[in-house]
Amino acid sequence: MKIVVVGGTGIIGKKVVERLSAHHEVIAVGRTNGQHNVDVTDPASIRSMFAKIGHFDALISTVGDVHFAPLSEMGDAEFRVGLNNKLMGQVNLVLIGREYIRDNGSFTLTSGMVSGEEPIRGGASIAMVHAALEGFVKAAALELPRGVRMNIVAMTIVEETMSKALKEFPALADAFSGYEPVLTSRVALAFQKSVEGIQNGRVYRVWGSN
Amino acid sequence: MKIVVVGGTGIIGKKVVERLSAHHEVIAVGRTNGQHNVDVTDPASIRSMFAKIGHFDALISTVGDVHFAPLSEMGDAEFRVGLNNKLMGQVNLVLIGREYIRDNGSFTLTSGMVSGEEPIRGGASIAMVHAALEGFVKAAALELPRGVRMNIVAMTIVEETMSKALKEFPALADAFSGYEPVLTSRVALAFQKSVEGIQNGRVYRVWGSN
Repeated sequence: MKIVVVGGTGIIGKKVVERLSAHHEVIAVGRTNGQHNVDVTDPASIRSMFAKIGHFDALISTVGDVHFAPLSEMGDAEFRVGLNNKLMGQVNLVLIGREYIRDNGSFTLTSGMVSGEEPIRGGASIAMVHAALEGFVKAAALELPRGVRMNIVAMTIVEETMSKALKEFPALADAFSGYEPVLTSRVALAFQKSVEGIQNGRVYRVWGSN
Repeated sequence: MKIVVVGGTGIIGKKVVERLSAHHEVIAVGRTNGQHNVDVTDPASIRSMFAKIGHFDALISTVGDVHFAPLSEMGDAEFRVGLNNKLMGQVNLVLIGREYIRDNGSFTLTSGMVSGEEPIRGGASIAMVHAALEGFVKAAALELPRGVRMNIVAMTIVEETMSKALKEFPALADAFSGYEPVLTSRVALAFQKSVEGIQNGRVYRVWGSN
């Protein structure tokens, strides 16, 4: 299969690319590095990326920024960051990617444990965006044509992100206090299951014991 | 209690106003009618509404437009309708309303059965927006100050809307084929439970047997 991994140069994406490269042609796309570049907030940039890559069998997205801050410091503009980036960025990869995906291909997006079921301090926008993505995937998957499937991987914080947060972003590490981080290798398995399996409209949860 | 019902002139809102008026001071707000007017897509209009109404004990919202269409006919612009209107319209009622709500007050928003759990044909954007609202409410409710609570009522299609759809909008009636509509009086009960009770961060489902 020809597989496009948008976010393929990030912490999660790198592991996904590594795992899938053993048996597939994998194209890693990054914001500023990777084999191709894309700004997912700009539909023209997404169109340009697909025009260069051409037809493909699977698209994986591991991208998306969301504003993380106490609710008391958030207004309309702060919520728009996640809506424009992690939500509509990934949704537009699907809406535009429809024109390039081959029959029986698949889309696999990324959301997270923080989606309403496990709220964290400062995570109101994260919860909104992750829940929105899961609602979209579960509904839109049932309207995709030509045998095309769509699933989403909802992950908790991974070990590497937690280590980084402890050093550089203590508020994020604090918000996940007591949450069990998972290995990126476990997350990569979920993406493989989505791409190589037959399921559709599924949310794959890669969570710790809490 | 002084209760503001945004959408208080609509099919659902009217019933909510009627039920709560027996024991409370209720202010019905509509887009173009009611005691006050508001355009929820415009934060300045929301500010102006609250400035006129002043402090209140409970805000109920039963408003919000979302684009309903087959996924094959939807692009970025069609998804933005629901994000700007039903999602951020209601979220901005909360974000701005925080400045006017009294201690131990409550916000109660509206989502729907079509949120990923019960997808309908043409409902990808509806599912996205409803799920987003529920994610927001469940997370943000835990960060509200001064004893303020927030819940959301997730309703299926009501009898009156179904009757209207059968005559004026057959595609919507078709999408809900086999779904059991509910009475607006049952929906009004859920809003009363949210306002007069003690629960927080809850999704009240007012659904039929399927």
